[in-house]
Amino acid sequence: MVFSGHQERYITLAKPRLRIIPFGGTGEIGKNMTLLEYGNSIIVVDCGVMFPEETMPGIDLVIPDVTYLLDKKKKVKAFFITHGHEDHIGALPYILPLFDVPVYSTALTIGLITVKLRERRLLDSSDLRTITHGQRIEAGPFNVEFFSVAHSVPDASGLAIRTPVGTVVHTGDFKIDLTPVESKPTDMGALARLGTEGVQVLLADSTGVERPGYTPSESTVGPAFDEIMRNSPGRVIVATFASLISRIQQVINKSAKYDRKVAVVGRSMIQNVNMALDLGYLHDPGDTIQPWEKIMNLAPNKLTIMTTGAQGEPTSALSRMANRDHRQITIRTGDTVVLSATPIPGNEELVSRNIDNLFRLGANVIYGADAKVHVSGHPGREELKMLLSVTRPKFLVPVHGEVRHLILHGRMAETLGIPADHILIPENGRVMEFSPDSARFVGHVPASNVFVDGLGVGNIGDVVLRDRVHLSQDGVVIAVITLNRRTGKPVNRPDIVSRGFVDDVDDPIIEGGRDLLYRSLQHTHANTSAEPVYVQNKARDILQKHFFTKTKRRPMVLSVVVEV
Amino acid sequence: MVFSGHQERYITLAKPRLRIIPFGGTGEIGKNMTLLEYGNSIIVVDCGVMFPEETMPGIDLVIPDVTYLLDKKKKVKAFFITHGHEDHIGALPYILPLFDVPVYSTALTIGLITVKLRERRLLDSSDLRTITHGQRIEAGPFNVEFFSVAHSVPDASGLAIRTPVGTVVHTGDFKIDLTPVESKPTDMGALARLGTEGVQVLLADSTGVERPGYTPSESTVGPAFDEIMRNSPGRVIVATFASLISRIQQVINKSAKYDRKVAVVGRSMIQNVNMALDLGYLHDPGDTIQPWEKIMNLAPNKLTIMTTGAQGEPTSALSRMANRDHRQITIRTGDTVVLSATPIPGNEELVSRNIDNLFRLGANVIYGADAKVHVSGHPGREELKMLLSVTRPKFLVPVHGEVRHLILHGRMAETLGIPADHILIPENGRVMEFSPDSARFVGHVPASNVFVDGLGVGNIGDVVLRDRVHLSQDGVVIAVITLNRRTGKPVNRPDIVSRGFVDDVDDPIIEGGRDLLYRSLQHTHANTSAEPVYVQNKARDILQKHFFTKTKRRPMVLSVVVEV
Repeated sequence: MVFSGHQERYITLAKPRLRIIPFGGTGEIGKNMTLLEYGNSIIVVDCGVMFPEETMPGIDLVIPDVTYLLDKKKKVKAFFITHGHEDHIGALPYILPLFDVPVYSTALTIGLITVKLRERRLLDSSDLRTITHGQRIEAGPFNVEFFSVAHSVPDASGLAIRTPVGTVVHTGDFKIDLTPVESKPTDMGALARLGTEGVQVLLADSTGVERPGYTPSESTVGPAFDEIMRNSPGRVIVATFASLISRIQQVINKSAKYDRKVAVVGRSMIQNVNMALDLGYLHDPGDTIQPWEKIMNLAPNKLTIMTTGAQGEPTSALSRMANRDHRQITIRTGDTVVLSATPIPGNEELVSRNIDNLFRLGANVIYGADAKVHVSGHPGREELKMLLSVTRPKFLVPVHGEVRHLILHGRMAETLGIPADHILIPENGRVMEFSPDSARFVGHVPASNVFVDGLGVGNIGDVVLRDRVHLSQDGVVIAVITLNRRTGKPVNRPDIVSRGFVDDVDDPIIEGGRDLLYRSLQHTHANTSAEPVYVQNKARDILQKHFFTKTKRRPMVLSVVVEV
Repeated sequence: MVFSGHQERYITLAKPRLRIIPFGGTGEIGKNMTLLEYGNSIIVVDCGVMFPEETMPGIDLVIPDVTYLLDKKKKVKAFFITHGHEDHIGALPYILPLFDVPVYSTALTIGLITVKLRERRLLDSSDLRTITHGQRIEAGPFNVEFFSVAHSVPDASGLAIRTPVGTVVHTGDFKIDLTPVESKPTDMGALARLGTEGVQVLLADSTGVERPGYTPSESTVGPAFDEIMRNSPGRVIVATFASLISRIQQVINKSAKYDRKVAVVGRSMIQNVNMALDLGYLHDPGDTIQPWEKIMNLAPNKLTIMTTGAQGEPTSALSRMANRDHRQITIRTGDTVVLSATPIPGNEELVSRNIDNLFRLGANVIYGADAKVHVSGHPGREELKMLLSVTRPKFLVPVHGEVRHLILHGRMAETLGIPADHILIPENGRVMEFSPDSARFVGHVPASNVFVDGLGVGNIGDVVLRDRVHLSQDGVVIAVITLNRRTGKPVNRPDIVSRGFVDDVDDPIIEGGRDLLYRSLQHTHANTSAEPVYVQNKARDILQKHFFTKTKRRPMVLSVVVEV
């Protein structure tokens, strides 16, 4: 297999060929956005966000870098969205307003995008177009067919994109689930037909490649919820993702079966449930869903609460409940809390904290793989083999996952007989160029992480993040030095303020620093050496050394010189 | 079961009864230290450290709070150590010098403690005493018998502590492994004998209670390593814990079998391997272990490298190799890297990053549960049931684990017929009092986390940590205001310095803040309102509001007033 890191980097200016460029935040490759470019046309597949890693403190979201797209703005024909998860639609409010082009997707996906754009008052200026599976859209030299795939949100799609160099199949996020819930199965017939027609390039989801075998069907969580609704002595509180409509449906069905009413709690989940009910993607078997206020006084064993916070998000409804900080719901002995999700890497500590606090409040908490209350939405290894066998692509580009997933996916494909040089392992922003009989890497486009922090988009760079990490490690010390402009000597002992460094403002280490600094600056020679910048740097160096000697810590030291 | 959080808090001053007090860092209960107190005597079981959580930035280690022990210093008779892992011995360098008492443990454990104390030049002043399994030590009214348990370090012990109110059994960390490697199995005979004699209180490891069934034996990793050593085309680099002597032995054995020499790389692993060889806990079947320099030029398939860094620790040998920053070893295509460990919660991101980087450098990486290169050292649910059936304790105190593990352990014990009010779920610092026929919670002793940061021990409090977290989120802004002492008005535009807030020092948001502040302070009335503290607070408020309005971020704002 050909790994992008191992090949020469050059840009070719040859005749039009198909270019494919993946974008993604943090470590994942091609997760959030993919560009297809041919001649004077570009189409965009997906437009999502990543959630920040530990090394990005204070950052709200990470969105794809669209420098390249903006440079070629006139070429952009349309956005095609595979499904309605944040990591595929969440960047639309930031990026869509920059381009005057339509967005195509299925009804539920357009519904989820609508909720998002309406909140930002961007709905009226957006051109959203609902398609159905099987439909084909022309966009320049591209012809895009949506086909149904099963995933953890209904109405998910894979794309078959006919281009002048052959058909590109992009799986989107998928699993081969033949018994999904309120959702269509992956259209194996379409995949087989495409395989027969000939697939030039397959871009395939690698997220689950570490897992052997097949991912269990969504319907396998039914029996676990049946037992929970039947046997729990009190209220059942189920936390899952707001977009996991199929899961919400199962909770509603099993609640109804055992005469429980369901209250939906949490803004994003209420919005999504209402939208999915309106569009017919969620069904209420008979007044089961009720506002909390109307049913809060029912017997506890007649109550189910659906809410968000399965990932431990600190401001979510479930985290508030665990911290006795929820406006409406107080956890009490006899409650059963179900975490119907697997913690995303990095969220384990937050999720554990919630589980512990819920147990402390007397709840029974059902969580973890043994509880069988969650299944993955991504394919295991045998499903990926099935996909390859059915589509028989000429070239394979593993996407969605970190580099290890892509490489493992590529290796597995080699065992199925795909030649090593027909498997391309990209990195984000790496340009792949395809002709009818070749595939190669031909350069790079900008693909750094663009950070959203508060109202700011892209105005947070690596220096700011490095400073934040530094500040968090040992805190900050600020020295304010008042210099006599004439003599270049300090007028009095410097002021020192610190935060996050030592407990006590009168700490002898701080006081020692003040004395040392005052003494040292007394001996500064007047004239050039008393330049404020010189004094400022000298003061910083003196204090850094002093603090490190005394504490073996390295706070950030800032010095400000005031001349009077 | 009786949960400490749900009972009245009071201190009793009745006649001598047995008190047991657990201590632990972060979320784990009783993990790092346990006190047993009877009349005028206290013994200490274990003395370990915890590694800091995400909410403790910059902290190196967390050690137990010994306020209570220092208050009763004269009562302290001895330290008894169950095994040589950091979370059971790591705090000895900080705590042992405060008490002039002996430390008892098995030979390998004393060896690991020796390495640690020698490094800190504390060995000569310490009284370390090696015991053998089956031996009994008198310490005031306590009689302490060590018995063998299997764990992921050899020579681990459980303790049977005879006291005037009955026998207390503390399992330490254990699993019921009947085929361990270079290590003794858990002494089921001793446990059965104790059960027959009568166990008053059982303190038992709850870490693995979420796992159904039995934990696989250490010997089950042998076949996986056999295959790896036989089939890998180049060098094999195995990363594991420096104390996992049994694992190191298996790697040595399988390397020798396929004619590979083994180089040990990384300071802590070299120290431990040498010590274990000296004490006879590790065996070299015939010049297999060699210094790196001597074997570095052998054919790659004749080489194994044993190293640390399986947890992604940034300064470990493996992380350096993954980042092309290791002095001696450069990862290349054909290398096989084996991660023989499970990431500790919180380390997942670091471990993933290393795996990705190793793949990028061309290595094959073997990791994860499917690879069968690691097994847990803690008991699964069926082993805990076995322990309860064999020891038949009157009272059960689940320890080692977070509160959810303790509660799940307690519930499981109820299903085995232990009465609910005979199961005590403690928190750290909670005092449990036992008589021959009763058990209850009787108060609290100080048990906060004591932080080690650089040279400082315990001089970092919650305010410092809160400040560090705040600083990491949105950075810091410092305003320096020079006031005319007479008029109370600013002499010139204030200086503003920021770090971790916005990218550019000349950012219009910062400049806007300067202008706004200057204008506002112009209108300060002279006399009382021009007190520096008043101006300082006003400046802070103005800037906080300004920055939040403009950015929706909340940097820490500090203001310093200089009067001239």
